[in-house]
Amino acid sequence: MAKAPKNAISPTREEDYPEWYQQVIKAADLAENSAARGCMVIKPWGWGIWENIQKALDKKIKDTGHENAYFPLFIPLSFLEREAKHVEGFAKECAVVTHHRLEAEEGKLIPKGELEEPLVVRPTSETIIGDAFSRWVQSYRDLPLLINQWANVVRWEMRPRMFLRTAEFLWQEGHTAHVGENEAREEVDLALEMYRELLEDFLAVPVIKGEKTEAERFPGAVSTLCIEAMMQDRKALQAGTSHYMGTNFAEACGIRYLDESGALEHAHTTSWGVSTRLIGGLIMVHSDDDGLRVPPKISPKHAVILPVIPKEELRGEVLEYTSKLHKELKELSYNGSDLIVQHDTRDLRGGEKSWQWIKKGIPLRIEVGPRDIESDSVVLFRRDKASKDKLVLKREELSKKLPAILDEIQANYFKQAKAYKKENTTSDIVDLEQLKEYFTPKNKKKPEIHGGFVLAPYDENKKSEEILNEFKVTVRCIPLEQDGKSEKCIVTGAETNKKAILAKAY
Amino acid sequence: MAKAPKNAISPTREEDYPEWYQQVIKAADLAENSAARGCMVIKPWGWGIWENIQKALDKKIKDTGHENAYFPLFIPLSFLEREAKHVEGFAKECAVVTHHRLEAEEGKLIPKGELEEPLVVRPTSETIIGDAFSRWVQSYRDLPLLINQWANVVRWEMRPRMFLRTAEFLWQEGHTAHVGENEAREEVDLALEMYRELLEDFLAVPVIKGEKTEAERFPGAVSTLCIEAMMQDRKALQAGTSHYMGTNFAEACGIRYLDESGALEHAHTTSWGVSTRLIGGLIMVHSDDDGLRVPPKISPKHAVILPVIPKEELRGEVLEYTSKLHKELKELSYNGSDLIVQHDTRDLRGGEKSWQWIKKGIPLRIEVGPRDIESDSVVLFRRDKASKDKLVLKREELSKKLPAILDEIQANYFKQAKAYKKENTTSDIVDLEQLKEYFTPKNKKKPEIHGGFVLAPYDENKKSEEILNEFKVTVRCIPLEQDGKSEKCIVTGAETNKKAILAKAY
Repeated sequence: MAKAPKNAISPTREEDYPEWYQQVIKAADLAENSAARGCMVIKPWGWGIWENIQKALDKKIKDTGHENAYFPLFIPLSFLEREAKHVEGFAKECAVVTHHRLEAEEGKLIPKGELEEPLVVRPTSETIIGDAFSRWVQSYRDLPLLINQWANVVRWEMRPRMFLRTAEFLWQEGHTAHVGENEAREEVDLALEMYRELLEDFLAVPVIKGEKTEAERFPGAVSTLCIEAMMQDRKALQAGTSHYMGTNFAEACGIRYLDESGALEHAHTTSWGVSTRLIGGLIMVHSDDDGLRVPPKISPKHAVILPVIPKEELRGEVLEYTSKLHKELKELSYNGSDLIVQHDTRDLRGGEKSWQWIKKGIPLRIEVGPRDIESDSVVLFRRDKASKDKLVLKREELSKKLPAILDEIQANYFKQAKAYKKENTTSDIVDLEQLKEYFTPKNKKKPEIHGGFVLAPYDENKKSEEILNEFKVTVRCIPLEQDGKSEKCIVTGAETNKKAILAKAY
Repeated sequence: MAKAPKNAISPTREEDYPEWYQQVIKAADLAENSAARGCMVIKPWGWGIWENIQKALDKKIKDTGHENAYFPLFIPLSFLEREAKHVEGFAKECAVVTHHRLEAEEGKLIPKGELEEPLVVRPTSETIIGDAFSRWVQSYRDLPLLINQWANVVRWEMRPRMFLRTAEFLWQEGHTAHVGENEAREEVDLALEMYRELLEDFLAVPVIKGEKTEAERFPGAVSTLCIEAMMQDRKALQAGTSHYMGTNFAEACGIRYLDESGALEHAHTTSWGVSTRLIGGLIMVHSDDDGLRVPPKISPKHAVILPVIPKEELRGEVLEYTSKLHKELKELSYNGSDLIVQHDTRDLRGGEKSWQWIKKGIPLRIEVGPRDIESDSVVLFRRDKASKDKLVLKREELSKKLPAILDEIQANYFKQAKAYKKENTTSDIVDLEQLKEYFTPKNKKKPEIHGGFVLAPYDENKKSEEILNEFKVTVRCIPLEQDGKSEKCIVTGAETNKKAILAKAY
């Protein structure tokens, strides 16, 4: 076996960011492309991260009074036609089921049994859930109706990219119905705040909460709120959205209730979702040129014990010691659940084994060899530190200190990501020329490297957005936090008291 | 509102068993049919049961060394063609995606963008997972490969029935690859034992473990093991299956490894699954003419507190008392998790409210009114007892006794189901005439009511199975436990030392 290179991932972020992303996924064994075009296989390490994201968010969803349910994968074509803007937005990219049988003819399978009405594989479930809500809601007493589902959805993607854009992806979609606009808008805010907490407290990804411009709104929504995160190529990733639908879907689906006075009213609805795309964001925010780094709170495993066996005759002694250590550490708790420690006894070269775990981004490696046993100590390697940076601890201290060390790593990832975002966000740009300059790659061979986020006065206007789009910049959001000062719009020069985040985006 | 009837479900089991089943689902608010043909909406109470089934089984799956992963929803048509028997078994009933775009023409959406190779919505994932395994397995060191996925699958059903047979259903499918037949067969046994534990210890449903005859085997399997349960109409429900594939799928998908001597070998594979069908079985095993009964270990909620408010002016006093009680009970644990108690303060007539909970099958109702408060006691109604059967407890005893009472209810459901199965299983039938008689409904108006399970000497043989099928009886399984005595086959009269379970089935 060749010696592990100084940097485990080739190319590095600087050399080729998009390819680095693919190589991190491969090296961490997170996922792979499948034979079904645009669909990926999520491998156990990637799935373990998704399970932890689900667990953290599902608790928040339930604690705030929502109930999980499950709705059909298939949507009758006619349902999609009900909400005009929704059709425009989603009809273009659907998987359509037209037959329900296959027959073998000359060894080939041929689709048979044509359906009278084709079925669409859900790209999102507003219309089919709206149909159920129209039966469930009769009176104001049935409101608010607070439902969530965890499901797979399909949107045909022309340029699929693992986790970020795949034909099939997994998500949760909250769907709620309310008596009036105020209550519905409070729900939209509540969902957005759950997402901020999930991203910042669990994924250690700092986000900006904001509202989308009309052009970027969900098809059929009155208002779309979002959280935006900065990746290490300084592009933005929309990490979650929460929509206020007004009565658009209630009218399209017939969600009506009798109010206290006996009048028939349309409910105000919301929907909100985050998806496996979060894992793409996680990779791009935290990983380095050695591979993935996973924040402890969502890591499938927290630590790995690596027995160091310099000579075959010492194997028994070392493994006896590390097995005991493993047993002891497995009893610990972290973040309200079991601490997950793996004892990696595989017969592999030590360097190769260590690098596998570095590339998987496990928060802690615990090495124990004969000399450590003699001095009753263990050697810790933290994934948030340089790969050679070791910390020697007395064995008896390990159990006591381990949860706190994990908390430190978690906090450190968040701190690093926040600092990076701050460094690469400017509010010093005053006109379109400077803006263009900021977003122009300095090196033509590295088109990914450009300025970052711009916070600038912006007067919402379709024409302005087209001008920005010409140099691939989009209005990511109008942040919810505003200073309210009146200044000149960076595009039109008109006075405005709103500022927007402008950035290139995924 | 009309007074609640003596029996909440109409018709009763005796009157019309299939319709009773639908009415129990409706009354418990478990699920409903959707506009997408054959697909159901699983409502929060039904979904809560499924979540608990998932939680219990997922723990067993992980504790036995399996890892979860996720594979694509879509299978290229050519993959299905790879295993000849598999094609025969599954190709008939598939949802086929042929287009990837919709275009509006005169207000109607038309499927466009025809795919070069149609995609099949997975009816089961042997072929697409086998494709991944062919990449993941290179050496004997990569084996055993122990993977599970939780997913939705689609089989086009001509006569759908909620939970029992739906076009889309949810399940887990375990897929494993091994070095040889012995290890693979051990895995098949292990999965079956997990299912037995899930059914008996959590769902309180007694099962028979057995092997399917060749005619009932999974398409492409060498051997199919199953668990069979008896419903209250004395029909059998296949509740879970575990298949040994030999090298059939390894050959079809190219799953090969280098063994220790450097020779290239095909892996031996297995697959095993249980689905939302289990909820159908649960309903049919435990429910009565008052509605659903859910064993505490998988009930979404364990108890409900029902404040009794005879006069409006007592409302404040009663609710203050019940709120305190609620707070206290929420702190309790049951079965390793939180005890889930709902405080039902809705402004509904007491009788109506009680019946709603009876029909949902909540294990315990706790009623508290002004007189109970005076005597510092609470009134318990157990769902496993007659609906008027009350138990008065001192309030201070409640917290202490509650988990034990739930355990009693859990044990009681299992005991009742075991007794019912025993009562309706016979091994006294010696020839085909008696067998026909046993399975003939005594009352032509109630075709559902017949004998039950027959355990009889059976010499496996296709012709015999056709004879049995003529009067709608199938060989459910050859039980794994056999006494080995040589006796005359109930169909052919040939000597055999195998006994089979014969029954009508879902």
